[in-house]
Amino acid sequence: MSDQPRRGTRIAHIGIAVPGLDEILPFYRDVLGMPEVPLDDADGARIAGLAAGESLVELLEPARPESPIGKFIAKRGPGIHHVCFAVDDLDGALERCRAAGVRLIDEVPRLGAEGKRIAFLHPSATAGVLVELTEY
Amino acid sequence: MSDQPRRGTRIAHIGIAVPGLDEILPFYRDVLGMPEVPLDDADGARIAGLAAGESLVELLEPARPESPIGKFIAKRGPGIHHVCFAVDDLDGALERCRAAGVRLIDEVPRLGAEGKRIAFLHPSATAGVLVELTEY
Repeated sequence: MSDQPRRGTRIAHIGIAVPGLDEILPFYRDVLGMPEVPLDDADGARIAGLAAGESLVELLEPARPESPIGKFIAKRGPGIHHVCFAVDDLDGALERCRAAGVRLIDEVPRLGAEGKRIAFLHPSATAGVLVELTEY
Repeated sequence: MSDQPRRGTRIAHIGIAVPGLDEILPFYRDVLGMPEVPLDDADGARIAGLAAGESLVELLEPARPESPIGKFIAKRGPGIHHVCFAVDDLDGALERCRAAGVRLIDEVPRLGAEGKRIAFLHPSATAGVLVELTEY
């Protein structure tokens, strides 16, 4: 990433687990006025993307009850499932996590939606927040 | 707001309920590299602000167990407490909420931290997410 300008850490998106997209989409799109952004399905979820400045709101509807989002809703109810931060240097950030004793779900980055490299951290290390990291 | 350029809805901040600031602040500040932003205490909580591009992460530590954040942690554990969206026209957004049947906690805007006009919506209307609205 040394040939890229450093932009600093940003909120890439917040992922919200919802029982049904059709019921909640009008709130974000029409009431709050966020433009819809087409996103592919991922991890057994239908996803509706909504632009919020440099960030996205992703509404995640489980395609099946046994999908990760389906299990989350069954256990905790609908609500914010995770927050994704874009960082300048994903490998460096994971290295800093290891040095600080932050527990990782993904020890090495994997390919997420849209072909971006991502890694999830464990909520036990981040005050109960499921944190996803990605790169610009 | 008619004399202001329209900027569209953005994520102003996400508020994360944490048992103690000192334990979690190093993760966001040093591991993720977010600059600290001084914020006043509010609603019985000590607040640490961290810049994430055009948004903030606000870490909320209850000053007392019976404060709103203290009760939240006792009931649900630490985690994301609310998300605040900045909109171009707060009064217009609340009017659209009413027209769409979105239940409001604050029927009229009140003054929040830093003297900004804010209003909270009820989580029952927003798929379990406590949504705060504010203006630029």
